Amino acid sequence: MSQLSEELVEFRRDLHRHPEPAWREFYTTARIVDELERRPLDELYVGAEVLGGERLSVPDDAELAEWLERARAAGAREDVLTKLEGGYTGAVAVLKRGEGPTVGLRVDIDALPIRESDADDHAPVASGFRSEHEGYMHACGHDGHATLGLGVVDAVLDSDFEGTLKLFFQPSEELISGGKPMAESGHLDDVDYLLAVHLGLDHPTGEIVAGIDGFLAVHHFRADFSGHPAHAGAKPEEGDNAVLAMATAIQNLYGISRHSDGATRVNAGLVGGGTATNIVPEESFIEGEVRGETTELMEYMREKAERTLRSAAEMHGCEVEVTTEGMAPSARSDDAVRNAVADVAGTTEGVTSILPTDALGGSEDATYLMQRVQEHGGKAAYVGVGTDHPGGHHTSTFDVDEDSLGIGIDVLSGTILRLAEERP
Amino acid sequence: MSQLSEELVEFRRDLHRHPEPAWREFYTTARIVDELERRPLDELYVGAEVLGGERLSVPDDAELAEWLERARAAGAREDVLTKLEGGYTGAVAVLKRGEGPTVGLRVDIDALPIRESDADDHAPVASGFRSEHEGYMHACGHDGHATLGLGVVDAVLDSDFEGTLKLFFQPSEELISGGKPMAESGHLDDVDYLLAVHLGLDHPTGEIVAGIDGFLAVHHFRADFSGHPAHAGAKPEEGDNAVLAMATAIQNLYGISRHSDGATRVNAGLVGGGTATNIVPEESFIEGEVRGETTELMEYMREKAERTLRSAAEMHGCEVEVTTEGMAPSARSDDAVRNAVADVAGTTEGVTSILPTDALGGSEDATYLMQRVQEHGGKAAYVGVGTDHPGGHHTSTFDVDEDSLGIGIDVLSGTILRLAEERP
Amino acid sequence: MSQLSEELVEFRRDLHRHPEPAWREFYTTARIVDELERRPLDELYVGAEVLGGERLSVPDDAELAEWLERARAAGAREDVLTKLEGGYTGAVAVLKRGEGPTVGLRVDIDALPIRESDADDHAPVASGFRSEHEGYMHACGHDGHATLGLGVVDAVLDSDFEGTLKLFFQPSEELISGGKPMAESGHLDDVDYLLAVHLGLDHPTGEIVAGIDGFLAVHHFRADFSGHPAHAGAKPEEGDNAVLAMATAIQNLYGISRHSDGATRVNAGLVGGGTATNIVPEESFIEGEVRGETTELMEYMREKAERTLRSAAEMHGCEVEVTTEGMAPSARSDDAVRNAVADVAGTTEGVTSILPTDALGGSEDATYLMQRVQEHGGKAAYVGVGTDHPGGHHTSTFDVDEDSLGIGIDVLSGTILRLAEERP
Amino acid sequence: MSQLSEELVEFRRDLHRHPEPAWREFYTTARIVDELERRPLDELYVGAEVLGGERLSVPDDAELAEWLERARAAGAREDVLTKLEGGYTGAVAVLKRGEGPTVGLRVDIDALPIRESDADDHAPVASGFRSEHEGYMHACGHDGHATLGLGVVDAVLDSDFEGTLKLFFQPSEELISGGKPMAESGHLDDVDYLLAVHLGLDHPTGEIVAGIDGFLAVHHFRADFSGHPAHAGAKPEEGDNAVLAMATAIQNLYGISRHSDGATRVNAGLVGGGTATNIVPEESFIEGEVRGETTELMEYMREKAERTLRSAAEMHGCEVEVTTEGMAPSARSDDAVRNAVADVAGTTEGVTSILPTDALGGSEDATYLMQRVQEHGGKAAYVGVGTDHPGGHHTSTFDVDEDSLGIGIDVLSGTILRLAEERP
Repeated sequence: MSQLSEELVEFRRDLHRHPEPAWREFYTTARIVDELERRPLDELYVGAEVLGGERLSVPDDAELAEWLERARAAGAREDVLTKLEGGYTGAVAVLKRGEGPTVGLRVDIDALPIRESDADDHAPVASGFRSEHEGYMHACGHDGHATLGLGVVDAVLDSDFEGTLKLFFQPSEELISGGKPMAESGHLDDVDYLLAVHLGLDHPTGEIVAGIDGFLAVHHFRADFSGHPAHAGAKPEEGDNAVLAMATAIQNLYGISRHSDGATRVNAGLVGGGTATNIVPEESFIEGEVRGETTELMEYMREKAERTLRSAAEMHGCEVEVTTEGMAPSARSDDAVRNAVADVAGTTEGVTSILPTDALGGSEDATYLMQRVQEHGGKAAYVGVGTDHPGGHHTSTFDVDEDSLGIGIDVLSGTILRLAEERP
Repeated sequence: MSQLSEELVEFRRDLHRHPEPAWREFYTTARIVDELERRPLDELYVGAEVLGGERLSVPDDAELAEWLERARAAGAREDVLTKLEGGYTGAVAVLKRGEGPTVGLRVDIDALPIRESDADDHAPVASGFRSEHEGYMHACGHDGHATLGLGVVDAVLDSDFEGTLKLFFQPSEELISGGKPMAESGHLDDVDYLLAVHLGLDHPTGEIVAGIDGFLAVHHFRADFSGHPAHAGAKPEEGDNAVLAMATAIQNLYGISRHSDGATRVNAGLVGGGTATNIVPEESFIEGEVRGETTELMEYMREKAERTLRSAAEMHGCEVEVTTEGMAPSARSDDAVRNAVADVAGTTEGVTSILPTDALGGSEDATYLMQRVQEHGGKAAYVGVGTDHPGGHHTSTFDVDEDSLGIGIDVLSGTILRLAEERP
Repeated sequence: MSQLSEELVEFRRDLHRHPEPAWREFYTTARIVDELERRPLDELYVGAEVLGGERLSVPDDAELAEWLERARAAGAREDVLTKLEGGYTGAVAVLKRGEGPTVGLRVDIDALPIRESDADDHAPVASGFRSEHEGYMHACGHDGHATLGLGVVDAVLDSDFEGTLKLFFQPSEELISGGKPMAESGHLDDVDYLLAVHLGLDHPTGEIVAGIDGFLAVHHFRADFSGHPAHAGAKPEEGDNAVLAMATAIQNLYGISRHSDGATRVNAGLVGGGTATNIVPEESFIEGEVRGETTELMEYMREKAERTLRSAAEMHGCEVEVTTEGMAPSARSDDAVRNAVADVAGTTEGVTSILPTDALGGSEDATYLMQRVQEHGGKAAYVGVGTDHPGGHHTSTFDVDEDSLGIGIDVLSGTILRLAEERP
Repeated sequence: MSQLSEELVEFRRDLHRHPEPAWREFYTTARIVDELERRPLDELYVGAEVLGGERLSVPDDAELAEWLERARAAGAREDVLTKLEGGYTGAVAVLKRGEGPTVGLRVDIDALPIRESDADDHAPVASGFRSEHEGYMHACGHDGHATLGLGVVDAVLDSDFEGTLKLFFQPSEELISGGKPMAESGHLDDVDYLLAVHLGLDHPTGEIVAGIDGFLAVHHFRADFSGHPAHAGAKPEEGDNAVLAMATAIQNLYGISRHSDGATRVNAGLVGGGTATNIVPEESFIEGEVRGETTELMEYMREKAERTLRSAAEMHGCEVEVTTEGMAPSARSDDAVRNAVADVAGTTEGVTSILPTDALGGSEDATYLMQRVQEHGGKAAYVGVGTDHPGGHHTSTFDVDEDSLGIGIDVLSGTILRLAEERP
C-alpha cells in the first residue's frame, strides 16, 4: 500500500486539533480550500455555492460568530472565512481531464460535541494533536475522510485519468442536515458515478466493504411543548402541565406499532422540561428521531409520531411545535459501482479482506447525494474503509489508524480510474 | 402608622440590589450582622452557630466560592464572611430585658433565580435599586422580611419591653432547607411565643392575617435514573432507556391516588434526560415534590412516589437514586398568638382589614420552627402582612409597597409587647 | 323503642328474598303499591307518573323483560306490572291532613348485582330469607329503607299529624340515575321539608346522624373506543389499537391535577377490550367516574376527563363515544331539619348516640331531590340511622339489624310531626 | 386435476357443519378415526396416545363436558369419545409399505369462535352445510386440511408407494398449543420428511407455495393482576389499583425496544378489569403475545414483557401471575423438500403458478413438528395450497374452494411418492 504522505498526515492532525461541529466547519473548510487551491484543479466552489435549498439545524448568530472567531484565531484565511459567513461551510472541487464520465467522491468534514480523552495512551495525546477545542472532538473520523478526499485528488492528478472528477467536502453530516442542501446544489446532477466513504464502522485496517446498504431513513425532530405554569401547591389546577404532556408523548412514541414491511426505530434522545419543583411545568421539549428501513417506513413512523405529539399536547391543554432538525432517505449501493470497488480492492496492496456489502444499521445523509445521482441516471456506492479504532465511534477514545488512509486512497482512486473507463 | 425610617428604606433597597439564593446569602447576612452589631443587643449568633443537624441542597464548593466572591466585591465585611464559609448563612440576635417570656420573630432572607424586570415602570428600576445580580431577584419579598426584622428590633429597643426577644434571620427558605437546621440549633427551644411573618400573599397594604394555616407539608426529591446507552438506530435493544423510565415514572407519579383524609399534591417540576437524538438515553432525572395537608398525608405521597420511581426504573432495566432535597412539616397557628396579633392590629394605624386566618396553600419551612416551639410547650403563629404587589410572587415584576413595612413593624412589635405581658 | 311489627318484618324479608337491580324493581314496586293501597292514603303515583325527564342507564328490552317475568313468577300484581313497563319503577304516596306544611321522606328501593353469602351464620340464611335471585342481593339495606317508608306511613297515620306527607320510593339509586328523573317529576316542588334516610354507614344500632354532609358530586361515564383491527403478527401497522388508546386514557385520567378548591376523585372502575391475543384490538371501553366535593369540582374533573378520553382516542387513530351513565350533584343538609332530627332523636327510646353530622365520602342521588326542594325554598336533611351490620355495605355478608328499623321509624315519624308544627 | 370424490366432499362438509374449537375436537376426531378405520392402515393412535408432555390452554371440565355432549348428540362414536376424554383430541395414522423412508403429513383440525355468515351468497349457506354450532366456525379451512389428509391417504394407498406414511391430525392449532405435545409424542422422531400444509393464505386456486418461511416464533401469555379494592369515593387511598397496573403494563409492553436482529411483535389482545365504576379495581388481566423473527427474538420480547408486567404490578402494590398459554418456535422449510414440492407441482394438472417460498408473517405450531423432525435429522416443508376464498381467514365469510382440495391432494401425495424415492 501507499504510505500516507507526511503532508497529508500533518493535514489530518491539524483538522483533528481543530474539530468543528456541524455548520461551524470554518477552520476546516478554510484549510481544505487552502490545500485545494495549491493543486491544479479546474473549478472550486465554496460555501453558499455548494448548498442549495433550505438548511436545517443552523446554529444562531452568536454561536456562529464564536466559532468564526475561533477559526480566525487558529489562523484560517480571512478571504475564505468571508465566504463562509452564516455557516455556509463546505466545498466542491472539480478536475476536468478529457471526455470520460464524471466521477464523484463525497467526504464529510464535521466533528462532534464530545470531550476527547486525555489518557496518555490515546494516540492524539501521545502524538500531540489532541483537540484544542475542549468539549469537541473528531470522534467519527471525518478528519480522516477529508484527508482521503485530498489524497484521492493527488492520486488522480498523478494518474492518466480521463473524465471529470468532483470532490464533495460536505458539512453537517452529524446533524444529517448538510447532505440535502449539497444534493440540491446542482453539482451532483451530472455525476455518472458517485462514491461515498466511511472509515471504520468496526471493520479493521485492511478490510474493505465494497458497497454498504441497510441505511435507515431518518427524521430528526424537535417538539416544543408549551402549557401554563401554576404553583404546584397552591393552584395546581391552573397549570397546563407541559412535562406531563411530554411524558405521555414519550410513552406513546415508543409504542408506535412495528411495521410488517421492515425495520423501524424511534428514540426520544434528549428531553427536558420545567423550571422548579414547585411550579407546574410550563415548557418541555423532546429531541427525537424516527427511522425506517425504507423512506416509506420512516414516513410511516414520522406521521404516527406527529400525531402522538399533537394529541399528547392537546390532552394536557398544551401547544406543541414540531420542527424538523434533520432528515435523510434510505439508499442502496449499486452493483456496478460496488463491483468496481471490489475488483480494485482485490488488487490493492494492504487489503486483506473484502466484503461485498454490510448493513450500516444507522443513518447517513450521503444518501441524499446517492439518491440525487441515481435519480439522474447515475450510479452510487457507499464504501467502507476499515481502520483499527481503539474506541468505538462517538466515544472519547476513538481514533483512526493512519495506515488505513493510504489503503483508502488507493482503493478509492483506483476505483475512480476504473469507473472512468466505463461508459455509463 | 409609623413611617419607615430612611435608614431602613436604604437597608431594604441594598438587599434588593444584592439578591442571593439559598445558602449563598453572604452579603445579606453580613449586612444584617453589621446592622445588628450597631444596636445594643445581648447576644448575636452567626453562621454555623445557628444551624444544627444536616443541611440539604447546599450548592457545591465552586458555586459557594463564586457567591462569596460576589459578596466580597459588593463590600461585605470580611470577618463576617469568614464565619459563613461553607454556606453557613443566617443569624440569630437576642435582646434580654428582665423576667418576661421569650418571644421570637422569624424572618427569611434568601432570593430567587428569577431575572428582574427592567421595565421603566417597575419601581426598583425607576428608583434605581434593581437587582445587580442578573438572573437573581428578591421576587418573594424576603428583602422586606429582613427589614421587618431589623425594624422590630428597633421598635422593641425603643419600648418598655420586658422579657427576651429573639430574632431569627433564616436562610434557604426557597429550597425549604434552612428551617430544619435552624429549628435544630437549640435557639428555639426556650421560645414561649414565636411569630413568623410573610408579606403580600395577595393581601393588599393595610390587611393583616392574624394567623395563617393550611400549610402543606412538603417533600422535595431528586430522582436520578441511570440505564445503559446504545445507538438508537443500530442496536436499540442494547439500551436501558432512562428517559422511558422517567416518563413512566412521571405518568404514574401524577396518578398516585387521592387520599380521603385531605389534600395532597405531586409535581415533577424539573426533568431532563438523554444526550443526543440518536442515542438511547443513559441518564435522566426528576426534581419533584409531594405535599400533604398533614405530615402524614405528605408521607403517604412520599412512600407511593418512591415505589413508583423504583418500579419505573426496574421496568426499564435502570437504577434510580432518590435523594431528599428539602422538607417541611405541616403546622397550625395557635389561637393564643393569633388573637394577640388580631387585637394589636385592631388598634394599629394603617390597618384597614384583619383576617383571623387564611390558608397558605403552599409550603413554608417556618413550620419546622413553629413545630419546634410547639413541641417544647410554646405557641406560634404565622402572620400575614398585606402589601400591594404589582406582579405576583415569584414573577419578574414583584415588588413590595414600602409603606406596608411600617405597618408590619408596628403590628409585630406591638404583638411582641403584648405577648411579653402574658405569662405562658 | 317501638318493636317492628310482624307485618313489616315479613315485608322487609320478602323484599330481601327478591332483590332487583336498578330500573328492574318490578316485584318491589308492586309489593310497595300493594301495601300502600291497603292504607287510607290520598294519592298514589306509580311508574312513569313519578319520573320526569330523561332516564339514564336503563337496561335493554330483553333484560327488562326477563326481570318483569321474574316478578310475575314471584307473584307481583299484573295491574301494577303493566304500569311499570319499560322499567318505569318507583312510586310516590301522598297523605293530606289539614293545613300544615308538606313534609317528604325519600327512600330508595333497588338492590345490587352481588351474590349473597350462603354461610350458615348469615342471618338471612339462618332465618330463611336469603336472596332467591342468585347473583343479586340487598347488600346496601334498601329493603330496610322501603320498610322504613312503610313504617313511617303507619306511624303518621296513627298520629295527629297536620299537613301533607309525601313518601318517595325512588328506584335506581345504585346507578345514581333514579334521583334526577324523580326530582324532575314535579312531586318535589311543593315540599317544605325533605328527609332522606340511609341505614348503617358504619354507625351501630342506636346511633343517629342528624344531617349528613360531604356528599361528593359524581359523574358516571362510559367511554367506548373503536379503532381498526389487524393481525398482530402479519400486519400490526394496519391496526388502530383501541386497547392502547384505553390504556393511555386510564393512565392520564388518574393524572388529572388535584384541585386546590377541594376534594376530587377519579376511577376507571370497569374496563375491557380486544378479542384475541393475535388481533390488534378494535374495541375497548372504560366505565368510570369522577367526583368533586362540589358540583363545580366534579365538572372540572369531568371536563378534563373528556379531554383526556378524546385525545387518547385521537392519538391512536380511534374514535371514542362518551356517554353519561349517571350523575348526582353535591348537597348539604339544612340546619333547620338537622336540628329537628337531633331534638326528636334526643327523646327517642333506643337512641344511644346522636351525631350532628358526618361526611358521606361517597355519592348519592338523593342530592337531586334535596337540591330540588332547596331550590324551591324548602329545606332538607339526609339522616343516618345506625344499624349493626356484620359485613360492610356492598359485601356478601351485609345485613341490617331489624331492631334498628323501629328506632328509625320513631325518629323519622317524630321529626315529620315536629316539622309539620313549624311554619316554613 | 383430480376431482374431489363425493365421499370427501361430504366428509369436509360434515366437519364444516360441526366446527369444534381447540381441545374440543371430539366429533371431528371421531369422524376422522371412523374414516381411517375403514382404510387398510397399519397403525392408528388416538387421543392421549398422540400427545406427550404438558398441554396448555385446555378448557375446564364443564366446558369439555359440554362439547363432548354435543359430539355425542351429533352422532360421534362412543368408543372413540371415550379415548378423547379430558380433551385429548387428535389422531395419528400409519401406513407401512416396505423399506422406503418415513414421510409424514401434518394437518390441523380445530375451528374458531367466530359466528359464520348467514348471507345467502355464502356457499355453506347456499349448499346447506353452514355451522350447526352457532358462534363457532371453520373460518381458517381446517375442515379442508383434514380432508386433504384423508385424500392423501387414499391417493397413497392407491399408488406404488414404498416406505412409511404417517398422517398427523393435530388438534388445537388456533391456540398454538397442540403442536408441542404432538411433537413430544414420539411419533415424529423417525420421520425423514415432513410436509405440513395450509390452504389459502391469499393464494388463489391453482397456486402452490413450495415451502413457506417467515414463521414468527410466538409466546401467548396471560397476566392476572390482583390488588386491593376500595370505595373510589370514600377511601380511594386504600385501593391497590389493578386496572392502573394493567394500563401501565400495556403502555410499556408496546414500548419494548425494537431489536436490530429482526422483526418483533407485541400485542395486548384481550384485556379487562374491575367490577364497578365506584370500586377501585381489585383485579385485571391481559391476554397477550410476543413474537420474534427467530425464537431468540421472541425470547428477548418475552423476557422484557415479563419484567414489564412484574414492575407494573409492583408499582401499584399489586401481584401479578403470568402464565404461558401457548407457544411456537420459528422454523424454516428445507430446500430438499421445497424443491420436491415445486417439481411435483410443476407437472400437476390444475397448478397454474408455483412460488418457491413466501413469508407467513404469522405463527403456526406446525413449527414444533418441523423442528422435531429437523432435530432428528429429517427435513420438512410447510406447503401452501392456494384456494379462492371469498372472505379473509378468520372472518365470517371465509370458505375454501373445493376444487383446490383435489389439486392439493395431487401435489401432496405426488410429493410423498417423490420423497419416498429419495434416500435421506
